[in-house]
Amino acid sequence: MRPNEPRSHCPINLSLEIFGDTWTLLVLRDMMFAGKRHFRELLQSDEHISSNILADRLARLVDSGVLTKSDDPTHKQKAIYRLTEKGIALLPIIVQIGAWGSRWVTDAKKLDAGARKVLSEIQEEGPRGWAKRMNELRAEHLR
Amino acid sequence: MRPNEPRSHCPINLSLEIFGDTWTLLVLRDMMFAGKRHFRELLQSDEHISSNILADRLARLVDSGVLTKSDDPTHKQKAIYRLTEKGIALLPIIVQIGAWGSRWVTDAKKLDAGARKVLSEIQEEGPRGWAKRMNELRAEHLR
Repeated sequence: MRPNEPRSHCPINLSLEIFGDTWTLLVLRDMMFAGKRHFRELLQSDEHISSNILADRLARLVDSGVLTKSDDPTHKQKAIYRLTEKGIALLPIIVQIGAWGSRWVTDAKKLDAGARKVLSEIQEEGPRGWAKRMNELRAEHLR
Repeated sequence: MRPNEPRSHCPINLSLEIFGDTWTLLVLRDMMFAGKRHFRELLQSDEHISSNILADRLARLVDSGVLTKSDDPTHKQKAIYRLTEKGIALLPIIVQIGAWGSRWVTDAKKLDAGARKVLSEIQEEGPRGWAKRMNELRAEHLR
């Protein structure tokens, strides 16, 4: 998915070489909106991500500087994943994608109450709402 | 990529089941910012999309209501692709992805002058700039 030499230097392409697949942004969604930090938590998604895909995507995200991986001081056998500033900067994209899905894809009407609440809160406040959530993520993730 | 039954009803997931791959948004980028409408034009990208991937992605986009395909009145053997309102609504996502790439992915510094100009124009004006470009796309694409 990500060769050493990018397909082009278009910034849209460079971004998609990092997260242009069906799984990566779902992993980030679960870190941003469900507070997940550990591999086992991230494995528990409605979309049933497989453990080998999850491991691959986490490694790529660490490699591209979107996440950091470190030992969890409270669980010696566990690693903890944290968003970097570069990762937190993906929040507006993920919110816009959610907004588009709930407006334009019929099945989104079936979305659960939690997702609906998060999205509407952030959307109603516009970029100010995104900035607030990004600051919360900075406080939680950055050291 | 897109089974009959979605993996979940999360709106982020539903969106990614439509455009969550490395190619689809590049096709839409070329329609939105380079005015491409025909298969042969879309085949000429810096990323060297193959004709079978392009055909697959165009068919999926028509199938999901993001594009329409019709006979081009000026070229009897050609089909013309047009954005729908649902497709035009993807503009803010694509602009945000470009903004993230040019801010956070080093190689984006090498981006060509045309891409830099389009992005900076739309970004500087914020959502107002997006709305203006979306109106231009409506005038060009919707019938």
